[in-house]
Amino acid sequence: MVKRVSVVGAAGYSGAELVRILAAHPRVEVASLFGSPGSKGCAFEAVHPALGGRSGPAVVPFDEAALRASSPDAVFLATPNETSASLVPSLLEAGLLVIDVSGAFRLKDAALYQAWYGFQHPSPQLLPRAVYGLTELCGEELDRARLVANPGCYPTSILLALRPLLPILEEGMPVVAVSASGVSGAGKRADLAYSFCEVAGSYKAYGVGVHRHEPEIRQALGLPAGSPFAFVPHLLPVARGILSTIHVSFRTRVSPDEVAGRWERAYAGRPFVRVLPPGRLPELKDVVGTPRAHLGSAPLDGGRRAVLVSAIDNLLKGAASQAVQNFNRASGFAEEEGLS
Amino acid sequence: MVKRVSVVGAAGYSGAELVRILAAHPRVEVASLFGSPGSKGCAFEAVHPALGGRSGPAVVPFDEAALRASSPDAVFLATPNETSASLVPSLLEAGLLVIDVSGAFRLKDAALYQAWYGFQHPSPQLLPRAVYGLTELCGEELDRARLVANPGCYPTSILLALRPLLPILEEGMPVVAVSASGVSGAGKRADLAYSFCEVAGSYKAYGVGVHRHEPEIRQALGLPAGSPFAFVPHLLPVARGILSTIHVSFRTRVSPDEVAGRWERAYAGRPFVRVLPPGRLPELKDVVGTPRAHLGSAPLDGGRRAVLVSAIDNLLKGAASQAVQNFNRASGFAEEEGLS
Amino acid sequence: MVKRVSVVGAAGYSGAELVRILAAHPRVEVASLFGSPGSKGCAFEAVHPALGGRSGPAVVPFDEAALRASSPDAVFLATPNETSASLVPSLLEAGLLVIDVSGAFRLKDAALYQAWYGFQHPSPQLLPRAVYGLTELCGEELDRARLVANPGCYPTSILLALRPLLPILEEGMPVVAVSASGVSGAGKRADLAYSFCEVAGSYKAYGVGVHRHEPEIRQALGLPAGSPFAFVPHLLPVARGILSTIHVSFRTRVSPDEVAGRWERAYAGRPFVRVLPPGRLPELKDVVGTPRAHLGSAPLDGGRRAVLVSAIDNLLKGAASQAVQNFNRASGFAEEEGLS
Amino acid sequence: MVKRVSVVGAAGYSGAELVRILAAHPRVEVASLFGSPGSKGCAFEAVHPALGGRSGPAVVPFDEAALRASSPDAVFLATPNETSASLVPSLLEAGLLVIDVSGAFRLKDAALYQAWYGFQHPSPQLLPRAVYGLTELCGEELDRARLVANPGCYPTSILLALRPLLPILEEGMPVVAVSASGVSGAGKRADLAYSFCEVAGSYKAYGVGVHRHEPEIRQALGLPAGSPFAFVPHLLPVARGILSTIHVSFRTRVSPDEVAGRWERAYAGRPFVRVLPPGRLPELKDVVGTPRAHLGSAPLDGGRRAVLVSAIDNLLKGAASQAVQNFNRASGFAEEEGLS
Repeated sequence: MVKRVSVVGAAGYSGAELVRILAAHPRVEVASLFGSPGSKGCAFEAVHPALGGRSGPAVVPFDEAALRASSPDAVFLATPNETSASLVPSLLEAGLLVIDVSGAFRLKDAALYQAWYGFQHPSPQLLPRAVYGLTELCGEELDRARLVANPGCYPTSILLALRPLLPILEEGMPVVAVSASGVSGAGKRADLAYSFCEVAGSYKAYGVGVHRHEPEIRQALGLPAGSPFAFVPHLLPVARGILSTIHVSFRTRVSPDEVAGRWERAYAGRPFVRVLPPGRLPELKDVVGTPRAHLGSAPLDGGRRAVLVSAIDNLLKGAASQAVQNFNRASGFAEEEGLS
Repeated sequence: MVKRVSVVGAAGYSGAELVRILAAHPRVEVASLFGSPGSKGCAFEAVHPALGGRSGPAVVPFDEAALRASSPDAVFLATPNETSASLVPSLLEAGLLVIDVSGAFRLKDAALYQAWYGFQHPSPQLLPRAVYGLTELCGEELDRARLVANPGCYPTSILLALRPLLPILEEGMPVVAVSASGVSGAGKRADLAYSFCEVAGSYKAYGVGVHRHEPEIRQALGLPAGSPFAFVPHLLPVARGILSTIHVSFRTRVSPDEVAGRWERAYAGRPFVRVLPPGRLPELKDVVGTPRAHLGSAPLDGGRRAVLVSAIDNLLKGAASQAVQNFNRASGFAEEEGLS
Repeated sequence: MVKRVSVVGAAGYSGAELVRILAAHPRVEVASLFGSPGSKGCAFEAVHPALGGRSGPAVVPFDEAALRASSPDAVFLATPNETSASLVPSLLEAGLLVIDVSGAFRLKDAALYQAWYGFQHPSPQLLPRAVYGLTELCGEELDRARLVANPGCYPTSILLALRPLLPILEEGMPVVAVSASGVSGAGKRADLAYSFCEVAGSYKAYGVGVHRHEPEIRQALGLPAGSPFAFVPHLLPVARGILSTIHVSFRTRVSPDEVAGRWERAYAGRPFVRVLPPGRLPELKDVVGTPRAHLGSAPLDGGRRAVLVSAIDNLLKGAASQAVQNFNRASGFAEEEGLS
Repeated sequence: MVKRVSVVGAAGYSGAELVRILAAHPRVEVASLFGSPGSKGCAFEAVHPALGGRSGPAVVPFDEAALRASSPDAVFLATPNETSASLVPSLLEAGLLVIDVSGAFRLKDAALYQAWYGFQHPSPQLLPRAVYGLTELCGEELDRARLVANPGCYPTSILLALRPLLPILEEGMPVVAVSASGVSGAGKRADLAYSFCEVAGSYKAYGVGVHRHEPEIRQALGLPAGSPFAFVPHLLPVARGILSTIHVSFRTRVSPDEVAGRWERAYAGRPFVRVLPPGRLPELKDVVGTPRAHLGSAPLDGGRRAVLVSAIDNLLKGAASQAVQNFNRASGFAEEEGLS
């Protein structure tokens, strides 16, 4: 069985990775491709270098009627947050499976959208229905999902490392997640702050305490607002990739082997999370261009504390390839279909 | 009054910065330049691009007799740790002021050298005499110093941010220093791990729990071995610069203004530490190529915790320019002579 | 039908790309993987990030008996020039198809090896039998080849642009090929000249008049030794890719459309050469990571002269993917098998 | 004697370098600093990292009355071409020395402005009065200049190499200048084409046959429109620097020593042109951050042809430091004042 899929926002960095993956997916037929509302189109083969020589539908300016006329079974939204928020209701009503790569349906508490995203959520009634698609940590709800809120790139890297260890963390001690992201995380746009001359050779922290991924991480960890958690994003002078370095305190002494064991059990049989052997820590170059997360840890203080390190490609496991994992699951396909 | 100075290890990255600064220093005459023992020489103008067109002594293979024959008042050692450890005693005996950029005299406890540096210190009796030259935190002992142990690059960045805040930190809560350094920190050497193809586009943590700068930082903070401190160095794909991101917990709520105020008081009148206005965090590009440290902070959790950010050029404030600050002080010159 | 293949030199940059491609090739079974003689081995999944999670034979130190015992039909040599030169005779005698990625069998005149490569060729009798595998410019001899000399990366980029235009070039006027290569072209090795700090932010010409690819290009163009041709390689601060900018003079006025037309006719039906529409010139980022060459031109002087621009990934079309094109042809498979 | 100077366009990349140099110039007092018309201001110390800790006038939005009220002796214009063209007449009338870093007064033939710059020159009568300030090639006219047209960055790199060799070039044979520039050459601006993700890891030719620096180079070489000259600019993934690789044909065999000799004679006593010893070619890293040009050559074809290589920092010798050389000369100061 083949599913027909459409992508909205196909010309951005995440959108282009989606199109590249979907074009080679053995159980997908690309029905139609659209720019984000307001953006221009381009030829199919211009979307991504890897598409050179292949044929497929051109990226055209967004038009919901044209989208429906192309008869997709599923739609991927790689669109700005407010755009996704406004497009999703009618797409769901039309019976389509929606995989939203934006943040528009990730938070369960509608009030947080005003505080962190700066807009009042237009469809709060849909928030409970959205499945938060951190694939490896989802249960059967993902198999039945009609609306998947694809996780943010930073949350994906942090949650994959932290979630399996929550039961052994010491309460009251701060969890400190220091993350560094490549520039593509800011999207494909003209902005002096992301120009080559401003970024090359530099490095900085930004958005401390105000980054939209913070409430998303807190929600997924089940942390109350006041618990001692810190998320400190940084801008790396690389195009792609996120590496998160997370300091945790344990209730008891915990060896690197035990950390690795908990990860191994949590991700047994999952194709896209790799636990490095104790003694090795992830490097960005080993995950960039792949759909995988790499996890490793180093003990501190005889094992009472540890540094967890998690690396992903922000455009793949942090966006497009995880979206396809989620699409696969919600479509009844194997999770790795089209991704390995 | 002019001082004659020699540099040993003049062709490495830190050594070249030393030569560049000293060649333009109004109260310095360059007496002689040597490679590290075992390394080759080069013409004066080949040491550093900025020396093009200037004249001075060639860098010649190390020879202690030639060094003494050049009649220096002071010697800068930009040499490997063991080399410095073995050279210093006779240089001191000869009455020279020694500024050692290596780690050979930074630790007070000789036993730590075997554990962290892998060699038995040949001159433990000199360790108490060495002044740990984090210039802004030194007192009058620096003015009388004959042997200055120039601090490591990571420790400089971390200690400048942390030391003035020690009195208000909550005991028992972890201080987490996540630092990222440019590749020049590894020195000028042929090593696959630092080749362009392995480093460009990548990023990684390394040396967690085993980095030689950790006991140096602990010593300067006055931390007992078991206290909850973490130092997590990373390798940045840039040539120069260190940015440290430090998570701290306070005893009470502390505003960014109060953090800035403590820093301002600690560094009042010091030319090379700049406290950014609350709301701004340091960026690497603003300190690279300068002798300055930039400090900034962001509050967490209503001020109960904070992120401190500190940025320096690892080859300047983290090595060569701080060495010259120390030389200036020990020579009775103004701290900023030749540096602004 | 499936062919069993072995790779020698599997852990270098070109070798790793070969393994990545061959591991996913639908008509290939990887028989065995070896390091270059003298180099160490590694696990299969450590060869290339994209192999994470797949299984295959480990890379083991080279051993010709083990190679034969693995019963390959074909062997790829991603080894140093002299190593290839010495390995090939017995591999051919054993009846294996040999695809040599080194320069050891590219030149027809054995005397040139002493002059340009610095060694006397040990098997000059094999040079006439080697097919120079610039795939798109080969005829039926490639289909019957038992020894393929895979072209150099610079020659591939330059010859693809120049060869179809030779009939219209003005004789006696210089052809000037200015090429720029990423650092991976120098191989995976510890060398100060290719360290991050020496390369990042820099750019230089090198090897003018002495680069080994010059006699290869001259031979493939059919140029006598004295004809006015210049090849000027440069080192780019990027990991991968080659872009060649070639100045030519025509006998008559030639429009960009006519240039494109000649290229289109020369490469009609060939999947991995893309002629850009007149007005567009190739960019490195559009070919890196792909097996394709992009060609474009800009007219000068009303069409009497022109600039030709050609871009490839030096490790793919300039090495590994072209080697697989050649393997496919010599194995009776479609040229693009396993590559698109 | 001290001159009071103002800078318009002080917040751009070239402007910031100007301010950095002028602030430390022993015979200059900075009278006032302005943004380009339409741009915002900033604090003095925010203009350039090297100014941290120094004090000086803030950069304020442009206002010609305020400029005059600050009583400068000289004004540097680091403004867009049309802005410079419109500002210069009244500044000259006010008796100020004007150093224009834009292209507005470089071409002598007013008609070329419409063709290459896209605007009708508003003050063609001033073009003959403007001194083309390629400092090392200027005669006494520079000492008396009131309006200096500071050369473009590409022309500076190309002309310094070519001009002394013009008498020995073979007529009718093409001169091919392939140049590569860092991204700062495009100015400080928000533009997707110069964003980190689009530039990092890439490389491309652009503007072939239509770049504004082409008529400037042709004019300075004295080339008629149809002579076989090619200028092929490329965008390098570095922030700063230009390296030009120039292919020339000689009338007779010319050795690298003779090339070097002609350069040495042309630049005898000039502090900022360095002729490398035969056998060495310039590298970008050796000139970035310096006011110097490096020149080198490699012979081709037994000396009948050659490759000339020229490297400069596009923001210094290609803009700001050359502007100060010109200001020095026109002010009666030593050419190197404030620059070494």
